Amino acid sequence: LNGSLAIVGLGPGPARWMTPEAMSFIEAATDVVGYEKYLDRIPHRQNLIRHASGNGIEQERALVALRLANLGRHVVVVSGGDPGIFAMAASVFEAIETGDPTWRTLDVTVVPGISAMHAVAARLGAPLGHDFCAISLSDILKPWTVIERRLIAAADGDFVIALYNPASKRRRHQIHQAFSLLRSRKDLATPVTIARSVGHENEQIIHATLADIDLEQVDMSSLVLIGSSQTRIIQRSGNSRWLLTPRHYSEVR
Amino acid sequence: LNGSLAIVGLGPGPARWMTPEAMSFIEAATDVVGYEKYLDRIPHRQNLIRHASGNGIEQERALVALRLANLGRHVVVVSGGDPGIFAMAASVFEAIETGDPTWRTLDVTVVPGISAMHAVAARLGAPLGHDFCAISLSDILKPWTVIERRLIAAADGDFVIALYNPASKRRRHQIHQAFSLLRSRKDLATPVTIARSVGHENEQIIHATLADIDLEQVDMSSLVLIGSSQTRIIQRSGNSRWLLTPRHYSEVR
Repeated sequence: LNGSLAIVGLGPGPARWMTPEAMSFIEAATDVVGYEKYLDRIPHRQNLIRHASGNGIEQERALVALRLANLGRHVVVVSGGDPGIFAMAASVFEAIETGDPTWRTLDVTVVPGISAMHAVAARLGAPLGHDFCAISLSDILKPWTVIERRLIAAADGDFVIALYNPASKRRRHQIHQAFSLLRSRKDLATPVTIARSVGHENEQIIHATLADIDLEQVDMSSLVLIGSSQTRIIQRSGNSRWLLTPRHYSEVR
Repeated sequence: LNGSLAIVGLGPGPARWMTPEAMSFIEAATDVVGYEKYLDRIPHRQNLIRHASGNGIEQERALVALRLANLGRHVVVVSGGDPGIFAMAASVFEAIETGDPTWRTLDVTVVPGISAMHAVAARLGAPLGHDFCAISLSDILKPWTVIERRLIAAADGDFVIALYNPASKRRRHQIHQAFSLLRSRKDLATPVTIARSVGHENEQIIHATLADIDLEQVDMSSLVLIGSSQTRIIQRSGNSRWLLTPRHYSEVR
């Protein structure tokens, strides 16, 4: 009984961003495991068992998937965006690390996906055209002191910053703390963008600066991008604009 | 005459990583512009004019593409990986910024792709499972002092680090300087991986530590990943291993 486990990135939403590799793993699966909102994107068919679960129970989901694969099933765990970025790949390997030793002999594949960060950048122009970093603002699994240390480093290193998990309905103070820290260390005119539900019908792009961004607009579906000292606006007609972080660097600070 | 310009990410190589959106833009194009190695991946067909060019002339390539689009052609500029990461999107928007004002009215789309970073991470397990940054080691367009400042910030912020453009045949001292700096600020046992030509037939993965990595193995086709203090090895049978940067953080330094 040789089962298999694939951790598959669906991309940020629309089918046009799902790779052929992701599609072929889903077609070959006997079981698909994931957050119910992501499972909605997988077509129903006979002989595909669906294991939907709520949000925030990644570890439980990983265990379900590993047990099924160990029983000889061909299991796909789905992630939005790329599974390696603040998503299911880490959960599955954490479960393998501390779990049944036979899990280390399983056939495990990670299938990369278009990450939210790249989709948002594409929508905006070329804001990630130069060195950048990605930071999750969730302090559920890491202490706030670590997040703070990384925000300081990101500002001092003059990276473009992509903030993942910037806020939720309940988790509001983190985004305010993060911005007050960034405001104390970066030019207040730095371009900032809130990108909500990128690629979906209800996509919304809010352009602002570090000084005037309305943080109440940041929700769970948002990715927040903060420019480096080099990030510039290319104005188009009306309110339309592109963002550019050029490849060359002029020392400005 | 309404032309268009799409800057399309082909992913790191194999067709299984090229999105349906990328394929449909290529199918609808009248002209495809790009580095000759990437153009080799585009099937020949009638009515598709191919504008191949050598490496290192991104700005010239961007101008060719913009002029063609402005003449009413449907132009695709191809990039390996994701076009927004150290690739053609920045070149095109740089050209727009300083070029013919009518270029700002062009229909421009950036089509995201699977980035080398995500493909390498998928191949290794979940090394980017937590906060990370991407730094290009090329000092052709930015001063070395900026790179050094960012390496210091990345080490002090305890990010996982992805090094793009780590070296070429001629550009050798940068990778040595970068590692001597990182060795002075990070645990010498930190996992380091050289990933060469990921997804291609000649793919090669070299696992090492910050102390013992052989920098002579780093070439133009390499992406170098350096762990955070949290990055761990999950040993499998033989020499096989996975890398994991878990979602939770235990303070170790």
